[in-house]
This record gives sequence, structure tokens and C-alpha cells, in this order.
Amino acid sequence: MNEFPPSHPLWETAKSLDAKDPLRKFRQEFMIADPDEIYLNGNSLGRLPVRTVQRLERIIREQWGVWLIRGWDRDWLKLLSRVADKLAVIIGAHPGEVLLADSTSVNLYKLAIACLNIQRGKKVVITDELNFPSDLYILRAAVQQAQGNWRLQILSSEDGNTLPLEKIEKAITPEVGLVALSHVCFRSGFLHDISRLSEVIHQHGAMLLVDVSHSAGVVPLRLHDWKVDLAVGCTYKFLNGGPGSPAFLYVREDLAPLLDNPIPGWLGHENPFRFDLEYRPARGIGRFRVGTPPVLAMAAVEPALDLLLEAGQENAYHKAKGLTEFFLSLYDAFLRPRGFGLATPREPDRRGAQISLIHPEAWPISRAARDRKVVLDFRPPNLLRMGFAPLYNSYQELARAVEIFCQIVDSQSYRQYPEGVDGIP
Amino acid sequence: MNEFPPSHPLWETAKSLDAKDPLRKFRQEFMIADPDEIYLNGNSLGRLPVRTVQRLERIIREQWGVWLIRGWDRDWLKLLSRVADKLAVIIGAHPGEVLLADSTSVNLYKLAIACLNIQRGKKVVITDELNFPSDLYILRAAVQQAQGNWRLQILSSEDGNTLPLEKIEKAITPEVGLVALSHVCFRSGFLHDISRLSEVIHQHGAMLLVDVSHSAGVVPLRLHDWKVDLAVGCTYKFLNGGPGSPAFLYVREDLAPLLDNPIPGWLGHENPFRFDLEYRPARGIGRFRVGTPPVLAMAAVEPALDLLLEAGQENAYHKAKGLTEFFLSLYDAFLRPRGFGLATPREPDRRGAQISLIHPEAWPISRAARDRKVVLDFRPPNLLRMGFAPLYNSYQELARAVEIFCQIVDSQSYRQYPEGVDGIP
Repeated sequence: MNEFPPSHPLWETAKSLDAKDPLRKFRQEFMIADPDEIYLNGNSLGRLPVRTVQRLERIIREQWGVWLIRGWDRDWLKLLSRVADKLAVIIGAHPGEVLLADSTSVNLYKLAIACLNIQRGKKVVITDELNFPSDLYILRAAVQQAQGNWRLQILSSEDGNTLPLEKIEKAITPEVGLVALSHVCFRSGFLHDISRLSEVIHQHGAMLLVDVSHSAGVVPLRLHDWKVDLAVGCTYKFLNGGPGSPAFLYVREDLAPLLDNPIPGWLGHENPFRFDLEYRPARGIGRFRVGTPPVLAMAAVEPALDLLLEAGQENAYHKAKGLTEFFLSLYDAFLRPRGFGLATPREPDRRGAQISLIHPEAWPISRAARDRKVVLDFRPPNLLRMGFAPLYNSYQELARAVEIFCQIVDSQSYRQYPEGVDGIP
Repeated sequence: MNEFPPSHPLWETAKSLDAKDPLRKFRQEFMIADPDEIYLNGNSLGRLPVRTVQRLERIIREQWGVWLIRGWDRDWLKLLSRVADKLAVIIGAHPGEVLLADSTSVNLYKLAIACLNIQRGKKVVITDELNFPSDLYILRAAVQQAQGNWRLQILSSEDGNTLPLEKIEKAITPEVGLVALSHVCFRSGFLHDISRLSEVIHQHGAMLLVDVSHSAGVVPLRLHDWKVDLAVGCTYKFLNGGPGSPAFLYVREDLAPLLDNPIPGWLGHENPFRFDLEYRPARGIGRFRVGTPPVLAMAAVEPALDLLLEAGQENAYHKAKGLTEFFLSLYDAFLRPRGFGLATPREPDRRGAQISLIHPEAWPISRAARDRKVVLDFRPPNLLRMGFAPLYNSYQELARAVEIFCQIVDSQSYRQYPEGVDGIP
């Protein structure tokens, strides 16, 4: 078995890639409590930007504490659209096509039902088993609750990790009203080709809803140009918005006035501050707001988005691709020979900023890795899932992580970890 | 016209009431940036507890920043039930009958639809026009979207401010499946007698859903003992949870297993961390969770609830009643003679911790008052709405506010404020 000694040329590669990395300086923008910890969980909960700490402390003390109710007039209502417009840049939407609100599931529920209610005469919603389970729950609820007789067709993946576009294309009939997919699949990191899917789907009169939770910030997104109809996503993964930070939704601008929010809340009203007894929806995407937005949580998202915008979208995509590419070299040299498999596609344009390894002892290996300061996800039954965040992960961190995996497997130190199943949102 | 000179006996009364107030020391638990500002908007957005500042700074730096994804295991999942159980004490629920989640409107939507879907064979939902307009929007949506043929009957108020129990009683027929009301009406401060309503409503096989947004923390609430079926509310008013802080819902414990959440999210799953493709609801109230909860916002609620629990429920109710009672003495002496009317009932057990004054120039008076550091709400067309927070408002603040109202009206200084309509969540 190959060892991974300090003399190995891949260490030199890692160093040289880090030295040339134009985003190198962004690591210091994040709070790094333990410089030895290799945090590969940015696809679950992103690191804390230093400026978010400062921003939150200010908004708590100076705005909630001093402005009190006047905060709504002075900044908080503006904050909502300011943050949304920044996010729009990141996901390739026009201003006014994005809003932050609620959780991803609530947003998916609102958009899916709104969409099915205008796709009269159609009957089928297509998704795939690579989608987030929670998205499947919501889509099942939506087909039951929307007007008309809808059913959900869940396409299966032959290898459990990917789904060729042709399979979706074949499933599309004139009865299909909506195709709802995750852009990057949470288990394998497989990336759907949304641009091509959008063409195919629209040829058949269906609409396209994409969950971009795992792609926003690390994969090129051109939602508007791709003519995507609807999208949802969260901000706590690669967007670094904080634990349980607000989710978002996207509605193509021409579509918003046609859709009715099934949950008509006060802030979705055309004129929320008149307190009319009758609901009249805001003209544009604003109608998908529901209740009073969480100001502190919204404010936490803004500095995180600023960082991504400063780093530059293309730089972020380029580095995310570089990190996965480099990891695959390490995988081929050290992990494949040790019995690890690969769930993530090898083609760079078929994966997100994520590598998922397969190993029968994935659970105890993930525990052993955590104790060696490599923080990654276990996903049942046998996946080790790693997200690579272009703003704070380095190439040398990946090399070090692989060195530790090798030591754990070679020494069989993972055997001391009791059986169990764990997981983290 | 009576003036309100320093020699007036009501000043002495105010001083003496403050001196005897057992909650006096709680004011220092809140951030008071300007000691001269009289903040009567605790029913819109409560003041910032000092310990919330400390708590949030810790959770941001030490938990998000250091624990990162491990925070879920270490405290954040426990935080959810810990905060919910504290809130349960405040609203008179059993542990396991309350959860914090989403916004009030989303919670109302979930509970109303879940309720109507089990009240088969019935046809009518009753509410009243004193309810929050946003609750009316959601109830209208619920009757359209729930299974069966439902219609919403909105009882009108004869005086615009109150609704006698007999009127609701008369409206209840065997066709009524749900009565949904706001405990304290946001405009007038009128308080429904929920205990008696619950008896009447249950005699007819209907269920009772109460929005306690304006009563939680300042009015005695015994949701469980009163056999209330369902309740919703927000935490940013008298519970001082912060701008847009998470809302809550209550489901009587025997009822939870019978109700289906129309928005089945991952955290409402029986075993969220298994990521099953099939949804199976949690056994109890947990099924009404949807997405990943906002950790920072949840954490902000906890110290605020601790303060209320330390102050003691009975003390809080007693003081809230004392403040409104004292304000009415001031009203009779100074404001009625100046052309102000009263929208709030005079009987102490028919009102919340709120007084709403009627004045044709309510809008400019509210602006002039703000410039004199009396912060209160204007509600169209002619209401001046004041919330009295037992933990930080004093009797002398009320006397001072009334002194300022007199000066504004007597000097007609409000005439310099341009016409306009404003309002705040």
C-alpha cells in the first residue's frame, strides 16, 4: 500500500496550488478557532465569517436595542431586499426574482402548490430519488393538496448516485406539469445539467423547479438565463449564513404575477401596513412572503454574501472545481487502493463542490476522523461526505485529510468506535 | 382644561405605585439606551434583555464559530425543547404541548388545515373581525384548501372594539368545526374569555384555536386547563424575543397524534436523521416542525423567557393590570376632556396589557409623541395604541406620557406633521 509521506509529490502539488490560489486570503475572513481542524462540512453548515460577528453584535445592540420598533423603517425592510438582490447575483437571477423567507421546505411547498394550481389539465410531477428526502416529502404533500389530480413520479437512479438527462427526457410526457430536482444531489454530489434540462422540459410545456441548496455559491448558476421557472434553497451551507439561517426562493419575473401563494401572510400583502381585512397579493415575488422575517438571521446572511461577491463567482467556481479535482488525485493514489469507492462523478461538470466516498466502515471512520480533527459527514448506510468550501478550505487541508484517512484505515483505529448511526442537518 | 402639574396627586400615585412595584428591579435587565424615552410599543417589538446580548454573542462566537456542525448534537436540538418547555409554563401548557417554529401565519396555516381535515362533515369556521387581518387571510386560505366544503364566517363587532361571548355562542351550530380567535384583539386590546368560550365551543363539537400573540406573558393563560385545542403566537411582542423571532404553536397533547401537518418537513419526521425517502410523522407535536430551525433566533428567546419566569407570571399579570388601570385614571382626568376616546374595555378582565385611544388626529399626534420620546403605535384610521410591558414600563412613564399628550394637544404642535399613513409590524 502506498504511504503518503511528506516527500510525496502530491504534497508539493497541494502547496503549489495553495500558493497560486487567488482566494487564499479569504480564509482569514472566517473565524478559525482551531487552525488544525479540517472542516469539510461547509455543505452542512458553513463557517462563521468574522464580519458577521461584528455585524450581529451591532444589529443587536444598536438596532434592536436602540432603534427598537423604528428598525423596520430605518433599515430592516430595506435589508430584506438588499440581501435578496445580493443573493440574486450569486444565483444568476434578476433583482426582484429572489426573496429570503421561511425554510427551504416551506418555500418548496409554496412554490410547488402555486405551480401545480396553474398547470391545470396536467397530472404528473417528476422528481428523482437523488433529491433531498425532505423535498420528496413536500412534493408528495403538494401533489395531494394542489388542485387537480396529481401524482408524483420518482425516477430511480441506476447506480444510486447519478441520473442521466435522457432518463428525465424519456419520462416527460404532455401530462407532466412540473419537474422538481435538486441541482446538486446531497448524497453523491452529482450535478444535474439544469441548462439543458430546462430546454427539454419547456419543450413539453412542463415547468422546472430546482433546489439549489447544495449548489449556490460553488457552482455556476444562471437561473434566469437558463429560463428556470422556480427555485428554492438554503443559506446555511456554502453561503455561510449561520445555523438555520433563512431560506430563499426564486420565481422568474414573468411568472410571479401568475402564481398564488397558498400561505397568504401579512407581509405578502400589496400594502402590508394598511392591515386590510382582505388579502391582495403584492404584484411580484413579494407575494411569497408570509410572516415577519427574522431580522437577526437575515442580517447575518448579508456579510456572508458580501464575501462571496468580493471573492468573485468565477473564482469560487474555479477553486471548488480545483479542490474536487485535486481530491480525486489523492483518492486515486491513496484511497481507492484502501477499499474506498467513489459516489461522486469524475467529470468536473457533473459534480458540485463535494466528494462522497463509499466505505463499508464509513460510520466508524467518520467518528475516528472527527477525533483526528477532520470534520465530515456520515450519511447512512456507507457514505463519507465532504463539502469543499472555496473561501476557506485549502488544498493542503485535503492532503492532510487523506493522510489521516490512510492512518485510520491502516491502523484500523476506527474499530474502537461503537456501532451507531448519526447524522447532522 | 385640567393641567397636569407636578403637584397633581396622580404624580404621587405613580411614584408610590412604582415604589411598591415588586418588578421594579427588572427594568435594569433590559437595555435602556435613552432613559428619557417612554417605550410603549412592547406589543409590537419588546425591548432587548441585557442577557440576550451576552447569550447571542456567546452562541455566535463559541457555538457557531467553534462547534460548527457539532452544535446540533451539543446543544441546539436540546435548545429547541428547552425553550419550548419554558414557553409552555408561560402559556399554561404541559411540556410537549408547545414548539417554536416558523412564523405565526405559517403555524396558523398548519394547524387550521390539520384541524379542518379531521373535522369531517362540518362546514363552518368562525372568526371575528377583531382578529389580526393576517389571521383572516390564513383562515380564508385554509377553508379553501382543507378537505371538505368549508366556509369562513366572520362575526362583526357592533362597536368595532369588542365582541360579547353571547354573539359567538349564538353563531355556533353543529356545522361549526373550528372557532379561531385572537385572545387579545390587536386594535382595541379587548380580551376574549377563552375559558368560557372553550366550554361553549366544545359543547357543540367544534374546536378552538387561539392566537395568543398579544396575550402571552401579560395575561393569565391556562391553555391546557381551559381545554384549548390549538394555539399559535409570536415571541417578539411581550415575550421580548427580538425582531422577527420564531413563532410558536400549541397542540393539546391528546390531539397531536390525530393531526397531520400539511407541510411535512424533515424535522417533523419520526427520525429526521435517517433521511428516509418516506415521511413518517413524529408521534407528538414534533410533527408540526418543518425545516431547520433558526438557532440564533431560538437562542435569543430563551433568556427573555427566563426573565418572565423569574419575575413570576402572577406578578406580571398583576402589574400589567395595574398599569392599564392607572392609565385609565389618567385618561379620565386628562385625555377624555381633551377629546380622546377609549377603544379598550374598562373592565380589567376584558382587556390585555394595552390601551388604545381614539382621536381624529391620531396620526400626527403619534408622530409628535415620537418626537417627544413617547414611542407608541398608530393604527389606521384613528387609533393610538399603547402596550404596557410589566417588566420594563413604570407608572411614572405613563404619567409622563399623558403629560406629553396634553402638551401636544393643548399646543396643537401635532399640526406641523404632514398627512400620511404609517404603521409598523
